[in-house]
Amino acid sequence: MKPLKPWQVVSSREIYSAPPWIHLSRQTVRLSDGRVVDDYHKIQLLDFAVIVAQTANGDILVERQYRHGLGRVALMLPAGALQNGEDAMAAAKRELLEETGYASDVWNFLGKFTANANYGCGTMHLFAARGVRKISTINSDDLEEMEILFMPPDELFTAICKGDMSALSSAAAIALATHPEISRLQKISSSKA
Amino acid sequence: MKPLKPWQVVSSREIYSAPPWIHLSRQTVRLSDGRVVDDYHKIQLLDFAVIVAQTANGDILVERQYRHGLGRVALMLPAGALQNGEDAMAAAKRELLEETGYASDVWNFLGKFTANANYGCGTMHLFAARGVRKISTINSDDLEEMEILFMPPDELFTAICKGDMSALSSAAAIALATHPEISRLQKISSSKA
Repeated sequence: MKPLKPWQVVSSREIYSAPPWIHLSRQTVRLSDGRVVDDYHKIQLLDFAVIVAQTANGDILVERQYRHGLGRVALMLPAGALQNGEDAMAAAKRELLEETGYASDVWNFLGKFTANANYGCGTMHLFAARGVRKISTINSDDLEEMEILFMPPDELFTAICKGDMSALSSAAAIALATHPEISRLQKISSSKA
Repeated sequence: MKPLKPWQVVSSREIYSAPPWIHLSRQTVRLSDGRVVDDYHKIQLLDFAVIVAQTANGDILVERQYRHGLGRVALMLPAGALQNGEDAMAAAKRELLEETGYASDVWNFLGKFTANANYGCGTMHLFAARGVRKISTINSDDLEEMEILFMPPDELFTAICKGDMSALSSAAAIALATHPEISRLQKISSSKA
């Protein structure tokens, strides 16, 4: 394999900060080939957990919401930001319970993925919860109104193809968690962990 | 279905701009329930095309690169920003050719997905190209050094599960384009289009 050197951060200047949500900075970086670029941006957003929560009969818990970043009503998976220093799985369990009132005893970590390969923009931590059941009422401070639905995977695949699940993180989570070959490998690696 | 009203933008103030890449603004929005929030951020990044390019024997074209947003060397799919007013498929064809020297006569649009449901952060336009062949040399102004690899889908599924394809857009593109049920539905909808 070709050797590939990481870039080096020569200096970094904060441009804007809205803690804890957004930190925007501009870096001077030295590239692998030695060139120096003085306007490479870093956008730090909070890491977040996304949950593919299935009932005992295989239906997936979905939230129907208007989302301002999408500019439309869409189907979303339960998700939320990791709070200061919080473990990703703890955040997934907390968010599922707060947003929906549902809980599970069977959790699997399916991987983590950074939203933007140039700027960062936060990392998604993906979890599957099986056999979810309602144990409490909703206790969320989210700004969005929402409707909770339970949909069989087939209907969600159709929704993805029709553009009704237009958030990348939700569509990616469904595709990764229900992909026969990827999910088989994920099961092997989590049984080894 | 529960009626869900879109939010209304009452006012918007630009905070930072690095054209054409980044526009950060802070909005005052009126929520569905009438409450007014005066610090909702919008992060406009360029839309981008991601290409799942397969050779006649089914191997997928992958770029191995150090990516600063990930902070590591990773496997990436060919991808690039839509230039001013550019059609998404034209951008996909241009980026594949510029970055890799490869072209195809068989292109399919597999959907578009917005990177962040709160802030925006750009929309990914996903394409599949089949039977790709090399027709020119690489002609890219990307900052990254890279190595081009051809990998069977099985090896990419393993790479995703090992964390070696850690960019959300690339992992999502592989999972969506190779998901047996989602890709079957995508074929039906593109044959109707």
